[in-house]
Amino acid sequence: MPEIRQNRATKEWVIIATERAKRPDDFQAREEKIPVPAFDPDCPFCPGNESRTPGEIVSFRQAGTQKDKPGWWVRIIPNKFAAVSPGVELMRETEGFFLKMGGYGRHEVIIESPQHNLSLGNMRLKQVEEVCLVYRERYIELSAEKDIKIVIIFRNHGKAAGTSLVHPHSQLIAMPLVPTHIRHLLEEATRYYDDHGSCVFCDMIKEELEFKKRVILETESFVAFSPFASQVPFGIWIVPKEHNAGFGNITTDEAKKLAFILREVLSRLHTKLSDPDYNLVLHTAPIRDSNEDFYHWYIQILPRLTTPAGFELGSGVYINTSLPEETAEFLKG
Amino acid sequence: MPEIRQNRATKEWVIIATERAKRPDDFQAREEKIPVPAFDPDCPFCPGNESRTPGEIVSFRQAGTQKDKPGWWVRIIPNKFAAVSPGVELMRETEGFFLKMGGYGRHEVIIESPQHNLSLGNMRLKQVEEVCLVYRERYIELSAEKDIKIVIIFRNHGKAAGTSLVHPHSQLIAMPLVPTHIRHLLEEATRYYDDHGSCVFCDMIKEELEFKKRVILETESFVAFSPFASQVPFGIWIVPKEHNAGFGNITTDEAKKLAFILREVLSRLHTKLSDPDYNLVLHTAPIRDSNEDFYHWYIQILPRLTTPAGFELGSGVYINTSLPEETAEFLKG
Repeated sequence: MPEIRQNRATKEWVIIATERAKRPDDFQAREEKIPVPAFDPDCPFCPGNESRTPGEIVSFRQAGTQKDKPGWWVRIIPNKFAAVSPGVELMRETEGFFLKMGGYGRHEVIIESPQHNLSLGNMRLKQVEEVCLVYRERYIELSAEKDIKIVIIFRNHGKAAGTSLVHPHSQLIAMPLVPTHIRHLLEEATRYYDDHGSCVFCDMIKEELEFKKRVILETESFVAFSPFASQVPFGIWIVPKEHNAGFGNITTDEAKKLAFILREVLSRLHTKLSDPDYNLVLHTAPIRDSNEDFYHWYIQILPRLTTPAGFELGSGVYINTSLPEETAEFLKG
Repeated sequence: MPEIRQNRATKEWVIIATERAKRPDDFQAREEKIPVPAFDPDCPFCPGNESRTPGEIVSFRQAGTQKDKPGWWVRIIPNKFAAVSPGVELMRETEGFFLKMGGYGRHEVIIESPQHNLSLGNMRLKQVEEVCLVYRERYIELSAEKDIKIVIIFRNHGKAAGTSLVHPHSQLIAMPLVPTHIRHLLEEATRYYDDHGSCVFCDMIKEELEFKKRVILETESFVAFSPFASQVPFGIWIVPKEHNAGFGNITTDEAKKLAFILREVLSRLHTKLSDPDYNLVLHTAPIRDSNEDFYHWYIQILPRLTTPAGFELGSGVYINTSLPEETAEFLKG
């Protein structure tokens, strides 16, 4: 029997279409992947090609090596095709009935490794730690900039997830506004807090940890689970167990612990589903709400195994053809 | 310079990324399309294969022909892999912290033509009229059903839009709840009404018709334009010029007029962009809000020329690499 589940944090409904349900194995990539070399002379992110990208903002590199030359192991650059830009004046303007503002902001690329054919799930732990440390560093740095209201860190893995560049990288966009979608999420979380005096995410984690049937992995500081109302097959949330609304509040030690669970979960996805395409999003409160009692930062992993169609785009309700409980079971071992 | 535009009706922000902007021609499909035959013996929607689908709910067919046999020109059937189903008990249930309900509802397929290789943009007008009349008929019929709160009509065209079946068809899902996303849209529209005493969509149409720079086509009753804050390249709205919150209020005459503009717009998309994949969604107020002053039904066409990635999924803010004004110019002639 199909059922309609509610995500209590976001209030979004999801149809778990059991009639169409597939077994976890059915989602495994069928196509043979073309092997990717460790170095690609045509890749702008590979070492030696630094001049083909805008100049680096920051990098972790061997002592004695030069800026924008090889010797780095993590490198942050402005996105060459930036969606928003620091040089634009932040001015609200009406155009008759319509409202617009300058596309002010920052759009950066985090090149996660010099090696062309790695991904977060199969790098050494130390390297993933460096990536998480740099997420934290850039987040804190950009949060302090004038007029920046929110920093969104994300990662697109594979063509179906909207990327054409194979070389491992994440991106971040720092924006001068709080997106409507996120404002709605904050409102829903506030309402829950009004009614219960607790953070809805904290209550969700407590429940997931008690019943364990959707938990994939628990560590000292984090838990990874497939949400009760996952919008997509193999949707995963990685959530800090302790209450914390803003990502910028984490310590360097917590960033390293995040690296551990993130790498482990992505490694299992990689192995058990033959390297599926996915998007990763770091959800966090807007900067000014970083210390609120009602919100909670977390990482969402959205494998792109199905295509959202007209119904999803029009209603915001997703049809998920797999059971979160089975996802957890499949990825647990 | 990039700019951030607000859709005043939905309050959603869109980044118009002019640095990445492409000319309309750049979106033309490059791949050679494989010719599709007018009849496919393996297609469950082709005439003669009626027994391979669930039994028809209603059809328009030649006098003297039998139910579930050839002779129809529009045929409505339950979706074989229904996301929701009328046989499920509508019961809210908590599972500890979590909330779910039975997947009650209707999920139907509207087979738009017996001919396998047509689409709404290249059928005869008479046939598209029949499709719009059947949209109206099913909408009214299902709106009257107990516990149905909203009826969503949509169409997925092409693989990138989430369909694997080539045969021309639309779908509808009648649901026992108002999706959170739509509740938020209603709230935003209500707020606008509070401030202005007018429907935000009506005001938007007035403005578009005055300045004309985003208008693609205007008829006696409808206007097609590329919205100021279009989320995707070649996004198009087709809106009734007269205020009307609920699709079920339209007359049969209006349904025919809708068919004309819909066919014309889809035909231009087809010709000028070499048959792009797209989703079509009929947005309408929930049934009980069908006569409200603050909402307006409309059709949204979302070509799938780009892939929404982590940033869009996480923030709800889309990056659009084309200018709505250029879209209108391109599709106008």
